[in-house]
Amino acid sequence: MNETDYMRLALKEAQNAALIGEVPIGAVVVWQGKVIGWGHNLREHLEDATAHAELLAIQEACRYLNSWRLIDCDLYVTIEPCLMCAGTIVNSRIRRVYFGARDPKAGATKSLYEALEDSRLNHQVEVHEGLLADEAGQVMRDFFRAARKRKKAAKKKLKKS
Amino acid sequence: MNETDYMRLALKEAQNAALIGEVPIGAVVVWQGKVIGWGHNLREHLEDATAHAELLAIQEACRYLNSWRLIDCDLYVTIEPCLMCAGTIVNSRIRRVYFGARDPKAGATKSLYEALEDSRLNHQVEVHEGLLADEAGQVMRDFFRAARKRKKAAKKKLKKS
Repeated sequence: MNETDYMRLALKEAQNAALIGEVPIGAVVVWQGKVIGWGHNLREHLEDATAHAELLAIQEACRYLNSWRLIDCDLYVTIEPCLMCAGTIVNSRIRRVYFGARDPKAGATKSLYEALEDSRLNHQVEVHEGLLADEAGQVMRDFFRAARKRKKAAKKKLKKS
Repeated sequence: MNETDYMRLALKEAQNAALIGEVPIGAVVVWQGKVIGWGHNLREHLEDATAHAELLAIQEACRYLNSWRLIDCDLYVTIEPCLMCAGTIVNSRIRRVYFGARDPKAGATKSLYEALEDSRLNHQVEVHEGLLADEAGQVMRDFFRAARKRKKAAKKKLKKS
């Protein structure tokens, strides 16, 4: 398995989120070539503001290693992490982050902040962006297009009734 | 109950953390005058990088309201939130944050970042700092002094043996 293969697993997680109506973002944590944490956005289903793909994958990896320190672990995530997830990546001592497409409105690793490379914090993370970015962005665009379509159809129905 | 009373509950949570050897930070979430989320740092006990006081309190509040949106909720925390917790506060739409003492090394609401008041994000939070700051800082100083003492004593014992 190489970096692209791992990102494909994160993309599969994103698609799993889309299938249940969650904003399609997926993540996996890899340690010594093995995936030890999986996550897709579950905010609406769990009604939990912290249930982002990255957090769920990191929590699972902590359980797997029985350690809050994810030494030598890499995270693959389809969309640029937000502030909460960037902070979690730093706190868990993740080694490298690979993300697909940028999030210009909330991204905290390149767009609005560069939190993972901040030398004032007690841990820095190697960041690689753009891996399967087109696919990751497409999953998001498809999701929001379908959501707008559903909303429009519901409005039309309401007007008719 | 007023703001100081709620912060006293957060301080009590911090002391609960100290009692079990965790860095003593405590938090509560208040909604309509009622405490609906409690948390103290449990990172070492749970071996979970996300088990900070604020996150645990916010997750409990989400369960209580059965909503990831903590509308009209205020968070009281003894020490300035880190990046992960600041991001979680924004994501959960908390209304106001009261914190005690600053954390110059990792604080993300005043010290290193002012993430809660960032107008580029989709939610801004009212921040009040300094409530029972001396007490909050003292709990931390006592904890780290005792930890250093224990470490020194252990080293001495090792040399003797």
